[in-house]
Amino acid sequence: MSAPSYDPARIEYLCFAAARQDFLAGRDDPRAFLERCIARVDEFESEVRAFARLDLEGARKAADASARRYRQAQPLSVVDGLPIGIKDCFETFDMPTEVNSACFAGWQSDRDAAHVHALRSGGAVILGKTVTTELTMAAPGPTRNPWDLARTPGGSSSGSAAAVAAGMLPAATGSQARGSIIRPASICGVVGFKPTFGALNKAGGFDPSPSLNHLGLLAGTLTDAWEIAQHIGQVAGGDPGCAGLSGEAALPAACRPLRLARQYTYGWTLTDPASKEAFERFLKQLLSSGVEILEPDSAPELLAYEDATRRTPEFFFDLMMWEMRWPMLGYRDRRPEALSPTIHNYLERASAMSLADYRRALDRRAELQAMHRSLRGKVDGFLTLAHIGPGQLGLPPVGTPWYNDPSSAIGAPSVNLPVLAVDGVPLGAQLMGFEREDSALVAQARWLLERFGSRFALRV
Amino acid sequence: MSAPSYDPARIEYLCFAAARQDFLAGRDDPRAFLERCIARVDEFESEVRAFARLDLEGARKAADASARRYRQAQPLSVVDGLPIGIKDCFETFDMPTEVNSACFAGWQSDRDAAHVHALRSGGAVILGKTVTTELTMAAPGPTRNPWDLARTPGGSSSGSAAAVAAGMLPAATGSQARGSIIRPASICGVVGFKPTFGALNKAGGFDPSPSLNHLGLLAGTLTDAWEIAQHIGQVAGGDPGCAGLSGEAALPAACRPLRLARQYTYGWTLTDPASKEAFERFLKQLLSSGVEILEPDSAPELLAYEDATRRTPEFFFDLMMWEMRWPMLGYRDRRPEALSPTIHNYLERASAMSLADYRRALDRRAELQAMHRSLRGKVDGFLTLAHIGPGQLGLPPVGTPWYNDPSSAIGAPSVNLPVLAVDGVPLGAQLMGFEREDSALVAQARWLLERFGSRFALRV
Repeated sequence: MSAPSYDPARIEYLCFAAARQDFLAGRDDPRAFLERCIARVDEFESEVRAFARLDLEGARKAADASARRYRQAQPLSVVDGLPIGIKDCFETFDMPTEVNSACFAGWQSDRDAAHVHALRSGGAVILGKTVTTELTMAAPGPTRNPWDLARTPGGSSSGSAAAVAAGMLPAATGSQARGSIIRPASICGVVGFKPTFGALNKAGGFDPSPSLNHLGLLAGTLTDAWEIAQHIGQVAGGDPGCAGLSGEAALPAACRPLRLARQYTYGWTLTDPASKEAFERFLKQLLSSGVEILEPDSAPELLAYEDATRRTPEFFFDLMMWEMRWPMLGYRDRRPEALSPTIHNYLERASAMSLADYRRALDRRAELQAMHRSLRGKVDGFLTLAHIGPGQLGLPPVGTPWYNDPSSAIGAPSVNLPVLAVDGVPLGAQLMGFEREDSALVAQARWLLERFGSRFALRV
Repeated sequence: MSAPSYDPARIEYLCFAAARQDFLAGRDDPRAFLERCIARVDEFESEVRAFARLDLEGARKAADASARRYRQAQPLSVVDGLPIGIKDCFETFDMPTEVNSACFAGWQSDRDAAHVHALRSGGAVILGKTVTTELTMAAPGPTRNPWDLARTPGGSSSGSAAAVAAGMLPAATGSQARGSIIRPASICGVVGFKPTFGALNKAGGFDPSPSLNHLGLLAGTLTDAWEIAQHIGQVAGGDPGCAGLSGEAALPAACRPLRLARQYTYGWTLTDPASKEAFERFLKQLLSSGVEILEPDSAPELLAYEDATRRTPEFFFDLMMWEMRWPMLGYRDRRPEALSPTIHNYLERASAMSLADYRRALDRRAELQAMHRSLRGKVDGFLTLAHIGPGQLGLPPVGTPWYNDPSSAIGAPSVNLPVLAVDGVPLGAQLMGFEREDSALVAQARWLLERFGSRFALRV
């Protein structure tokens, strides 16, 4: 499947924060940086297929304007000149938003999503829209895994993860209702940052799971993920009614976690032996680095919480099914042929639900959130694999969300740490923190990446 | 200003719940009911101007289909055959949604708003879109008050209130971020029901204040308002993540409130003497009917709460300004000429805000909510005027929201009771309850309307 000319060994991740220093010092400029991204696109995109649409002309114009601002030492913000990709479920006034669905073919709104407006008004350079799965939840798009073209890149933020992993962009936006940021980040070996629920304004796009869906970042470095998230948070705020992303503009100082709860969740039973082994080795290394790892049976409240997270699937799907009724049932009524069999199956289940069913699922979620909050102060975070293994061979499916459901249900922030590899392709560890303590989570993630970042290059 | 042919004395409110009994008994049918509505439209609409758009053909087709279902004794729901108007900020797949703004001129989405889908799938007959103010918050539309064409109908659910008051429809949908349901209901003398925040799914429309905005009903009778709200709540649910409207499908039994807190709020100082007198008389009648009226100075916690509600304006506007930044700043960037000076002024203030300002306003709101919740069990509800007086002469402005801010900020349910009149035109009393206790509120509202409903006809 992989073309002879394609060589993953040539992949190099980009870091915009470093480039920005060069822009400010006059050693580099945004147009030159963009052209290097475009050169990667020219080289890899025909194989990787990360983009639903590219806007080279618009991007070059924006990069030139940014370059002029840097020459005058007047950049608009930390994202001025940043080439970025936008997940194609979010609106852009100058490009269609097609959500990989016939329902949205050619659809273009007259506005930018809230975070796109924040990026663009800060001088960022929108290079294109990145591929997602059908309506962010069903049939996969054409994107392939840059580390092995025969494998899935994960989803639903498939194109964002792949574009960053192929070094075509330093960062791209993603969204996660179940596992759609952390999972493709794990499979493509990039940093994924899913902040606290509501911390970044996700308005302005197709969103079938509003009470679950998080806006977040996929990036080559934690610095970029954090700085871009902070910029979006300050300009666009969080979801309406939410306090927005906490923390400072600069990446928090590294902080060694003292005590991490190791979790199995429903995902462990589905994880392949090699991935289990890689994770166990990682835990041993943490131990020898002075991080205490608490197994679930080390304390009754951890065991109860582990049990509760394993049972997340009992209610999670009901939350999604009820929330997708609108507007999906309307699309089904009028354009049934535009939806895949998977979506039709979902909608059959959604149609059979009552408000009482949804209320029961909400109550279950609230119980899980309360258990998680009660562990504050007792552990510094929670560690699992980020996915049940490396990306599967063949495109469908785009991976499973079992390791990601708990943090999506709880709304707690999580980071994919691209520190493991199995069969020569990436696998991530997932670190989850506590709601509204994004900064503390990222400080620990930084420590872990600085300590184990050599694996980032996937040479082990 | 009022045409000689126009005579408010001919106004008669419609009640769909009663008509439905006749449909079921074969004494009447939805098409005939619709034709009576259309006859009122023919008679009054040229003066009242409640509709942004009518769809007579679509409505007649839907009414005929409904009539067939009743003939087969198989109505789809309690709203089958209900002629209803949709506030023109909510999407309809078969009619444009123009929000009284050049920004949306001719704009038509391919979907129904969540509540419109719930109504339509239950067999309701969408007669048209009702006029709102510019972007639901600025320049008034052309609608006039059916009780006195020289007066404002209130806003922003202007057309919905006026269409019901003119007897053109039994009910219409509205939305309220500050006072946009209760205020026009008060001014037009109809029932306004603003449920608990999040109780009815408001998705699918232009919404510049998502953390404040409530979907609700304007109706000729409390029965219709409640039954329609319950239908929407069961089919479309509440806002995602919310438990949705509580209570049963049928109107709760009337229940005399034992103890109501009388509030002044910021509105009292702006209220004209005649309206103050009308309200004081109403309170005296309540007292003599066995309802205890607690003045703010009767208990320290009531005084503190009264003081806090008076200070709602200190933070309320900040909540609105921050939330309207998106997508309004984008519209301003690209189409400044499409926005009124009022909107430009708002956006200047919005631009000057920081996330920290918004967080402070959220904290203030949370404090007010906590004070309100602490009064649970101590009083049965809160009583104020619903507006500072009858609708002003001349169209702008559409009234003031000072009496409505507290319940909008708190998210507590409220009802406009059309029980007062000043200068021969309507003025409402506002009864506010406690969050998620909509049923208890409506039971009290029913008791009050049954007791004082003679004034409903505005003959006192």
